[in-house]
Amino acid sequence: MHVVVNAATSADGKLSSRRREQVAISGEADFDRVDRLRADSDAVVVGVGTVLADDPHLTVKDDALREQRRDAGEPANPARVVVDSTGRTPLDAAVLDDAATTYVCLTESAPVEQRLDLADRAELVTAGDERVDLLRAFAALQNQGLEQLMVEGGGELIFSLFDAGLVDELSVFVGPTIIGGRDAPTLADGDGFVADFPELELADIERLDNGVLLRWHVADEAET
Amino acid sequence: MHVVVNAATSADGKLSSRRREQVAISGEADFDRVDRLRADSDAVVVGVGTVLADDPHLTVKDDALREQRRDAGEPANPARVVVDSTGRTPLDAAVLDDAATTYVCLTESAPVEQRLDLADRAELVTAGDERVDLLRAFAALQNQGLEQLMVEGGGELIFSLFDAGLVDELSVFVGPTIIGGRDAPTLADGDGFVADFPELELADIERLDNGVLLRWHVADEAET
Repeated sequence: MHVVVNAATSADGKLSSRRREQVAISGEADFDRVDRLRADSDAVVVGVGTVLADDPHLTVKDDALREQRRDAGEPANPARVVVDSTGRTPLDAAVLDDAATTYVCLTESAPVEQRLDLADRAELVTAGDERVDLLRAFAALQNQGLEQLMVEGGGELIFSLFDAGLVDELSVFVGPTIIGGRDAPTLADGDGFVADFPELELADIERLDNGVLLRWHVADEAET
Repeated sequence: MHVVVNAATSADGKLSSRRREQVAISGEADFDRVDRLRADSDAVVVGVGTVLADDPHLTVKDDALREQRRDAGEPANPARVVVDSTGRTPLDAAVLDDAATTYVCLTESAPVEQRLDLADRAELVTAGDERVDLLRAFAALQNQGLEQLMVEGGGELIFSLFDAGLVDELSVFVGPTIIGGRDAPTLADGDGFVADFPELELADIERLDNGVLLRWHVADEAET
């Protein structure tokens, strides 16, 4: 399994404003790059916070890329995965439509009724008691044949994935703006590390739109 | 007056861990660059939070650079400026020693006793009622002949400077690590913007140590 985290941040490392409203950070070149990355993935993964804030569809936008996938015998869109400990994904969320297979990873603490409702619209992966056990959940996804995973946020999920040692690559488009805010979502939120900080290696730097794309590999030492 | 904000962040935009403990983000090449930037400045500016967390000295470390300043008829070290609304700078803070002139910018709300104590060790600039009025404080510094200002943090001060339209350049060394933490200090904290986000222009990208130095110019439209 190979896990790529992809995100766009302001020059001060924010994913969105403190109101959780999306800010136009990247441009058309980065949009196309993200679409290609989706098309090259077996699944696109987000946390439920991102579903609640943005209601993304997480499908491949370019017709030609979807056609290429079909020609290769794959579904037009990669699978979608929502990490959602307590089953808060709204039943009318865009990720639950029939454009792609969707997996919802939840825990034993998700209310039975919500699990039943979600089970009508998605494949459920249950792992963990209070918070999703990401190692077990991702192992279950791998058993479904999902090898190439792209994670699109948010900051809580991204931190948890680094904490679990599950991230192989990090691609960050850093855009030409300042969002600011001590309460604004950042690339990696959660509790944060206070020691044994994950180490990265800078694999590539590319000027893109009016910002820069930084591609980092996660050093092996940081994987636990 | 020309104001350069300089900072080192993790790949996820953090200045330090949630415990406010410094993390080794940059290496020797960036250390040397920062020392040269200090030597080229008339004053080095920090917020009182940085003084309380790190007790920095803010002097030029390289003997040759200090010698060059003296040869040019300048003091060996640039002036130091602490933005400290309520006069919390400890009297034994390293910035208050006699290695350079120090200005403490405070407000009418700073207790008189602290102001008297600080006045023994620093030049006081009083501007604002509850929070330092940065436009007035920086104008007062300019009247003292301080034209080239380098701001070294923290995130609260940096946000306030962007909010006041006082930043001309932003240099960020992005280092090869993840710090994480929704409560960890970021490059720009404060309340954050929700509209009229400051616009930047990417002036330069340089690979340095194991990270990357991004130099941004603040677009004129963002200055208010």
